Amino acid sequence: MEKFNPVDHPHRRYNPLSGQWILVSPHRAKRPWQGAQETPSSTVLPSHDPDCFLCPGNVRVTGDKNPNYTGTYVFTNDFAALMTDTPDAPETQDPLMRLESARGTSRVICFSPDHSKTLPELTVAALEEVVSTWQAQTEELGKTYPWVQVFENKGAAMGCSNPHPHGQVWANSFLPNEAAREDKLQREYFAEHGRPMLVDYVERELADGSRTVVETEHWLAVVPYWAAWPFETLLLPKAHVTRINELSDDQRRDLALALKKLTSRYDNLFKCSFPYSMGWHGAPFTADDATPWQLHAHFYPPLLRSATVRKFMVGYEMLAETQRDLTAEQAAERLRAVSDIHFRESGE
Amino acid sequence: MEKFNPVDHPHRRYNPLSGQWILVSPHRAKRPWQGAQETPSSTVLPSHDPDCFLCPGNVRVTGDKNPNYTGTYVFTNDFAALMTDTPDAPETQDPLMRLESARGTSRVICFSPDHSKTLPELTVAALEEVVSTWQAQTEELGKTYPWVQVFENKGAAMGCSNPHPHGQVWANSFLPNEAAREDKLQREYFAEHGRPMLVDYVERELADGSRTVVETEHWLAVVPYWAAWPFETLLLPKAHVTRINELSDDQRRDLALALKKLTSRYDNLFKCSFPYSMGWHGAPFTADDATPWQLHAHFYPPLLRSATVRKFMVGYEMLAETQRDLTAEQAAERLRAVSDIHFRESGE
Ligand SMILES: O=P(O)(O)O[C@H]1O[C@H](CO)[C@@H](O)[C@H](O)[C@H]1O
Ligand SMILES: O=P(O)(O)O[C@H]1O[C@H](CO)[C@@H](O)[C@H](O)[C@H]1O
Repeated sequence: MEKFNPVDHPHRRYNPLSGQWILVSPHRAKRPWQGAQETPSSTVLPSHDPDCFLCPGNVRVTGDKNPNYTGTYVFTNDFAALMTDTPDAPETQDPLMRLESARGTSRVICFSPDHSKTLPELTVAALEEVVSTWQAQTEELGKTYPWVQVFENKGAAMGCSNPHPHGQVWANSFLPNEAAREDKLQREYFAEHGRPMLVDYVERELADGSRTVVETEHWLAVVPYWAAWPFETLLLPKAHVTRINELSDDQRRDLALALKKLTSRYDNLFKCSFPYSMGWHGAPFTADDATPWQLHAHFYPPLLRSATVRKFMVGYEMLAETQRDLTAEQAAERLRAVSDIHFRESGE
Repeated sequence: MEKFNPVDHPHRRYNPLSGQWILVSPHRAKRPWQGAQETPSSTVLPSHDPDCFLCPGNVRVTGDKNPNYTGTYVFTNDFAALMTDTPDAPETQDPLMRLESARGTSRVICFSPDHSKTLPELTVAALEEVVSTWQAQTEELGKTYPWVQVFENKGAAMGCSNPHPHGQVWANSFLPNEAAREDKLQREYFAEHGRPMLVDYVERELADGSRTVVETEHWLAVVPYWAAWPFETLLLPKAHVTRINELSDDQRRDLALALKKLTSRYDNLFKCSFPYSMGWHGAPFTADDATPWQLHAHFYPPLLRSATVRKFMVGYEMLAETQRDLTAEQAAERLRAVSDIHFRESGE
């Protein structure tokens, strides 16, 4: 019988952080595409757009006026999904119709006053300020809430309604699904192996290298062995750090550089502003100092074959299992093959 | 303190089939939208398109020629995600890099020779043939595989690459994530309550009515209490049936009618061809006759506010928890408020 070969043969890989399997069909990348085409973001935006509700000095839909901010700028979302003062819901033991009240807040984080500059186009110094803002928000909201979700939706393909460089932070009075899942699995791994799962994983990936996309002094970005999205990456500190607000100054500075390189490789892959959703996961604020949580960021970019052809997580994926067409190693190789200097800066 | 009210206050609801929570933010439906617009499918397609690789008599990319079929037509996907003869992968106990070989097949099911007719526009007799085809495929593939996933991706928004009315069936040598999750939770519910979870649920919804969208003699479609997508529905037989191939003739005939009514309401909501991914879940073929599985279909439609504005499951949803802006009861009410006769048939 033929020998199994992960580059030719369909297989499943297991995500130890989520407990989910991913179906990998590496032989399938050749199928033709007649479906929806994404619209890549227009190449040149103005530095200030009078109609943008995030630009400095502009008035938002609520009538509030943005200050003339010069670095990052944070404000409470005008249409927050959560409120700070939701009353408790009555207790119920109904197994089929379970409901609980949810409290929290939701803020917008403008990364830069410049309407036209996404993360890879910011200077390393400006990126360091973005990281500091993520840290300050996490620290502050972590005093009140067990879970603080920092994230960015970038590009129209990821539901982003405004190209002005911005992310969000949502704080939750509860541990959301993904947090609860990662919490459980990291604790189980620690109980069994006596080491934090993702600290072990970083070591394995540093030794292997086939899934590495960016390595800096303190950080590693890999296409994880269990990647779901075509060019998904996992960004990890090399040392054990439980939350983003606990980074050393060196780690913070170096993170700015790692972000610059990673997002530049993304943009360079299809010579476009690469859409993604990204966000940070760190230990819940209910965890104690002995927590086996390892800080990490997930980048989930949808593009598959070009600036206009994306992967759809639809029928089979929604009803059965996530499916991908290229291996994690093939994706990492393609991201390594492009420069880590942004195409607009290198003038390529 | 103010009393909790699920129509005004953010809350979480629990999905007992998936074990996941959903964040509901009913106060948020009013936010303005400046993001991506979907392109609603063009209104009139020809009955036969010479460039369509699914139309009768046309040649596909592989060189195979479709027969001049007159009802449904099934063939093996030219770019199947699975192969029947993948060799076994070597066993590994690596907790961080787990891999297993996957076998299966993937077929395309053309619903009709008419390029222009989606499910709600087919006659009830033609829909009955679609159901019979789903049954025959499930029965046949279930002899070899533990899991047979019948599904349809409809519309460009759901990654569908061809408007010709068609679905797919993927058979798996393994129990995919979603199947394993529903299997575990239905078995646990049965162990605790002595009745199949979804048989209990049907009774509860029949008695309540506030989430009902379509009711026929043998079938019930509701926006489930725990819906994730804005107009998600769950379609269930009223009696206990474990797999689609086990329906009685009456149940099959009546299912054609229920499908016609449900998909017509969908199209009528925003007067467009309503995109969705749908699919059937029944007992795995490894389960015995005493299985507590109840057959059901999930419909996951992405549209939120109009034919062009969809819900995006992105940053917060991918990293933390699924979020929705209207309650299940509000969604059901809107689907009940439109006719169950398709707008093209009623000439409205
Ligand atoms: O099989 P198709 O229609 O070519 O492809 C579509 O459905 C598949 C199954 O849900 C997905 O894996 C693909 O991403 C999607 O584009
Ligand atoms: O908050 P925004 O940017 O208006 O909205 C976007 O991100 C949210 C958080 O991921 C999602 O719930 C919305 O569906 C999406 O359109």
